[in-house]
Amino acid sequence: MWRYADLLPVDGEPTDGTHTGFTPLVRAKNLADALGIKELYIKDDTVCHPTFSFKDRVVAVALSKAKEFGFDTVSCASTGNLANAVAAHAAIAKLNCFIFIPADLEVGKVVASLVYGPTVVRITGNYDDVNRLCSEIGGIYPWAFVNINIRPFYAEGSKTLCFELIEQLGWKAPAHIVAPAAGGSLVTKIGKALKEFHILGLIDKPNTKIHPVRPNTIAKSLAIGNPADGIYAVDTVRNSGGVGEHATDIEIVDAIKLIASTEGIFTETAGGVTLAVAKKLIENGHIGPDEPTVLAITGNGLKTVEALENKTDISHIIAPQLNAFRKLMTEVD
Amino acid sequence: MWRYADLLPVDGEPTDGTHTGFTPLVRAKNLADALGIKELYIKDDTVCHPTFSFKDRVVAVALSKAKEFGFDTVSCASTGNLANAVAAHAAIAKLNCFIFIPADLEVGKVVASLVYGPTVVRITGNYDDVNRLCSEIGGIYPWAFVNINIRPFYAEGSKTLCFELIEQLGWKAPAHIVAPAAGGSLVTKIGKALKEFHILGLIDKPNTKIHPVRPNTIAKSLAIGNPADGIYAVDTVRNSGGVGEHATDIEIVDAIKLIASTEGIFTETAGGVTLAVAKKLIENGHIGPDEPTVLAITGNGLKTVEALENKTDISHIIAPQLNAFRKLMTEVD
Repeated sequence: MWRYADLLPVDGEPTDGTHTGFTPLVRAKNLADALGIKELYIKDDTVCHPTFSFKDRVVAVALSKAKEFGFDTVSCASTGNLANAVAAHAAIAKLNCFIFIPADLEVGKVVASLVYGPTVVRITGNYDDVNRLCSEIGGIYPWAFVNINIRPFYAEGSKTLCFELIEQLGWKAPAHIVAPAAGGSLVTKIGKALKEFHILGLIDKPNTKIHPVRPNTIAKSLAIGNPADGIYAVDTVRNSGGVGEHATDIEIVDAIKLIASTEGIFTETAGGVTLAVAKKLIENGHIGPDEPTVLAITGNGLKTVEALENKTDISHIIAPQLNAFRKLMTEVD
Repeated sequence: MWRYADLLPVDGEPTDGTHTGFTPLVRAKNLADALGIKELYIKDDTVCHPTFSFKDRVVAVALSKAKEFGFDTVSCASTGNLANAVAAHAAIAKLNCFIFIPADLEVGKVVASLVYGPTVVRITGNYDDVNRLCSEIGGIYPWAFVNINIRPFYAEGSKTLCFELIEQLGWKAPAHIVAPAAGGSLVTKIGKALKEFHILGLIDKPNTKIHPVRPNTIAKSLAIGNPADGIYAVDTVRNSGGVGEHATDIEIVDAIKLIASTEGIFTETAGGVTLAVAKKLIENGHIGPDEPTVLAITGNGLKTVEALENKTDISHIIAPQLNAFRKLMTEVD
């Protein structure tokens, strides 16, 4: 992602996130067929990041900046992905690290923070409670809270997702980008990235509609009541002509299975929301069948297996004997 | 990985694994310091693969070949990672897919196969039982079992891990490669890759010692009693002057935490074994402090969180109040 360093708020050489970014843009032919659209792409941020979500992008900028400012301790309020990223990048950078998360997070995401060795503090409350507490702590302890007191730098990292997909499309903006909105900063920065590339003359004036997606559901990483960049996200979406949509739990799980069974990509619940909503936007005509569309799939399904556990188990159990398998085959037919 | 197509057994254009391979070779400075060695690298196959393990390499070759042969159904016996890879790649290629696994596998690995939509058959037995049953089934059903009847093609995919790390080292072979040995094919093919690059004049005669690692423990992906390529692996190791080692459960968990807390890389249990053994080889002088060494970290920790669940939980739970946090800080100090 640091190929775009000139457009990111770091002075001098970036010191974090060497192996972050430039994730694949997958031409999703099977999925496009299933949805009845001609040109569909997945910006696959489930892979090629150290902690398998787009949060590695924002943390790469935040920690480079925190070190420039001379902080020795980094911290964050998180629903999981950000915690994983901050903990991992802090370990590499040898910074002290405090992670604040809601107490009820998915086990995979908690273990995937603890393993890097930070101090993890679980808060008996929702994400908004965690966030408020961190603001208070930030007033007392001289720490870099990546998504609070150094948020303006952090958020700029999101632009790289959009920079990359434009480069990968041959320096063209798509007609639609569907992206998850939790705090709202990704959606806001996609808008900013489009604008910057246009100002620099790298692309024509973009006519891209940005569609934010939100659930209130099993997708814990999006369940934020008081989004930090909410107002800017709304502006960005409105100015682009995009529309917001939501998805139910059943639609989310179905979408996770659809993207896996057509494109071999295992997304976390947030990506399920993104696809479920894209499907609706295609069905109701907001996305036309001839309009190039990019889905931002921002996190990895291995972190939220709980969401699928009782919804995919159609496996069969048999003894290790050929006759048992023959019998199963006659039953399955 | 298809940059090395000329050295892989496919005719014509490969049709699978477009987004597989060329994983990072990380210069592991923090970890090297911790181990008392100068030049240590991690070949990080936990990232940049569709299903986050080196099995995507072998499956990319196997499925390209299966399609060349005209198979419409692919299958495998697996301890998890291979199942994930076959299921995902089969979905992309629109092939029918049967997955055979031991019934007691980690939940994450089972869900991470089911999500792609294959038929999953869980066998009440160990991996050797599963493997034997698959050989029998392969005698009756006209399916491509990637690690059985088309194994010779499949196994060649492992060479790409070694090709890549040599290219990434500037076309030089390291003094040591430490790699996990389950069926033994990775270790065998590392030896073959070194030889091929030498024959082609791409590197000097390699003087690389290959060290296989094996546990009999929580690392289920390595717990194979009757390794298919065992004899060849032994030959490869012996000819290179390498030594085999094993690790205990506690050593594995400690090593998983060490690599995470120094390099921000979250490995599955097999990678824990690799590091634990490397540590011993350094301590007992088999790996000298000045000898460039590569650790093959072949799978992702998110698939085996169970192994860590009660061993990393040093998190604290507090109410969302500043006073609660102040109190915690005095207790932690």
